[in-house]
Amino acid sequence: MEFDTIDALRAACMELPAADERASAAAAARQAVLTKPAGSLGRLEDIALWLAAWQGRPDPVIEQPAVLVFAGSHGITRRGVSAFPAEVTAQMVANFAAGGAAVNQLARTAGAQLEVIDLSVDRPTGDFSEEAAMDEADFLAAVNAGYRAVPEGTDLLALGEMGIGNTTVAAAVAAGLFGGTGADWVGRGTGVDDDGLARKAAAVDAGLTRHADAFGDPLAVLARLGGRELAAIFGATLAARRRRVPVVLDGFVCTAAAAPLARLHGTGLAHTLAGHCSAEAGHRRLLEILRLDPLLDLSMRLGEASGACVAMLVVKAALACHSGMATFADAGVSSGG
Amino acid sequence: MEFDTIDALRAACMELPAADERASAAAAARQAVLTKPAGSLGRLEDIALWLAAWQGRPDPVIEQPAVLVFAGSHGITRRGVSAFPAEVTAQMVANFAAGGAAVNQLARTAGAQLEVIDLSVDRPTGDFSEEAAMDEADFLAAVNAGYRAVPEGTDLLALGEMGIGNTTVAAAVAAGLFGGTGADWVGRGTGVDDDGLARKAAAVDAGLTRHADAFGDPLAVLARLGGRELAAIFGATLAARRRRVPVVLDGFVCTAAAAPLARLHGTGLAHTLAGHCSAEAGHRRLLEILRLDPLLDLSMRLGEASGACVAMLVVKAALACHSGMATFADAGVSSGG
Repeated sequence: MEFDTIDALRAACMELPAADERASAAAAARQAVLTKPAGSLGRLEDIALWLAAWQGRPDPVIEQPAVLVFAGSHGITRRGVSAFPAEVTAQMVANFAAGGAAVNQLARTAGAQLEVIDLSVDRPTGDFSEEAAMDEADFLAAVNAGYRAVPEGTDLLALGEMGIGNTTVAAAVAAGLFGGTGADWVGRGTGVDDDGLARKAAAVDAGLTRHADAFGDPLAVLARLGGRELAAIFGATLAARRRRVPVVLDGFVCTAAAAPLARLHGTGLAHTLAGHCSAEAGHRRLLEILRLDPLLDLSMRLGEASGACVAMLVVKAALACHSGMATFADAGVSSGG
Repeated sequence: MEFDTIDALRAACMELPAADERASAAAAARQAVLTKPAGSLGRLEDIALWLAAWQGRPDPVIEQPAVLVFAGSHGITRRGVSAFPAEVTAQMVANFAAGGAAVNQLARTAGAQLEVIDLSVDRPTGDFSEEAAMDEADFLAAVNAGYRAVPEGTDLLALGEMGIGNTTVAAAVAAGLFGGTGADWVGRGTGVDDDGLARKAAAVDAGLTRHADAFGDPLAVLARLGGRELAAIFGATLAARRRRVPVVLDGFVCTAAAAPLARLHGTGLAHTLAGHCSAEAGHRRLLEILRLDPLLDLSMRLGEASGACVAMLVVKAALACHSGMATFADAGVSSGG
């Protein structure tokens, strides 16, 4: 499946499959008779129901978990918005390939297949403070790359990104989608100082002024203020929804990338779990707007799907309880009164 | 090692080994050159340093993680303080043995050895609202059982408990150690209604009145208001400290059981990590008093070391990053400026 036009993509976003409420109800019925006080596993119980709802089975499985990390380069880096030079993006892609990054260790810990998709890291997008980051063809190519990247048969998907400058990009996308100024959405990213923070806010504000006519169209916001790795995350999130694959989102950039789907469809992100709340300032605000309740809050702010991978461990724990626990009847345990 | 007298136990609690600051500093130096922005792994970095500090090596390992679940029965259950009948404790011990409980699934997910220690579940402690829960011999036997239970060679220990009625017991211990009334410390436990909650508060208040003369002595509080599984958790926490084994605490009962060590020694719980914040009302208050920052907050309230096991997954993830990541120099990645 490829999207040849923005209109075709938009139409796909507006016709999304719903959760399987029957599978979810059956999973809830099972949770109610497992040997524990009702509700005592807290969010682990919610996760089991969510997996059931999206996999469409009361006994969900995690046999082929996958982690996708999309990498892209950003014209906005010329505005001095990052503590790291732009070439680090390509260097980190090499580090991913060599197995040396955090996400390599975390994906392995989660028993998940890791794939890194280089979205023309050697060719930065346009500087959104002066022009559109991507034209329509460039944007659709990135969305399609993300859409295609979701592995056949995967039953749990974690999404993440690498791209020096992309917390500035995410701030611009969030502001374009949900309002507010640069200062409302930017944070210290990889570690900019106060001057860097001011440059980030100014860059976002310039982008918001230039592309204000796009605010009514979430896809145009993503194309003009976003980046290729964000467009690819959007595509992967859409592909997962259409194939009923539950998705664990990572931090601020990842959530901003997926957010247009919530603007285009009332339950567009219902198949996603916010893996964690990043220490990047804008993330909590964005999660609140999207009504996503983050699973973890570990002051992480690395990206790379690192927080999503840690969350995946909790998802696996939740499923282990759902699948493996005895019922009150089986175990001969008296239930509460 | 056995403690024959309360005085010998108290003396042991007041002479505890300190953290290995050199190992911790070396681990911090390594974290600073791993391929990520400084501090961007948040609490995962803190965990790596904590493991290093207590294992006494800059390159800590988790090769023999263990989960200990202590079970005990409580005379206070006759006061109608639980939504479940007292016989559920023994039934759940059987369920642990059969592999059907939540902790069985979670310990397996964490790759940890699980041991369940039955502390005379067939013989309830005294009803603390009328008499001491344990006399000195009974208390020391339970402490010693916990002390002995820490497996030889373990490098990460999760502690938990099972005992119908023991959130009431934990509330009494917390109030005895740190002040406040029954109403300040009780919660709904396995799911009591408003009347049950009032009975819990009244039972605690009766115990506090009866045993007020013990409040100056944390060990006496634990003996007279506690329970055998709490005493054993205390013993295991002490044994771990003396052998420099990092400990992951579980919920309210587990934390209350370990708390006397913080009263007896200024850094008595420095080798422990609060695995999660339970939904049981008193836990957050207790963690704040102890200045323990819980790793997870998943609305869990099961006990059984279930929250500690989920936290153990995060600890393993933290170590995987610390051990496996490439440095900036190794990977040829430019560091920030």
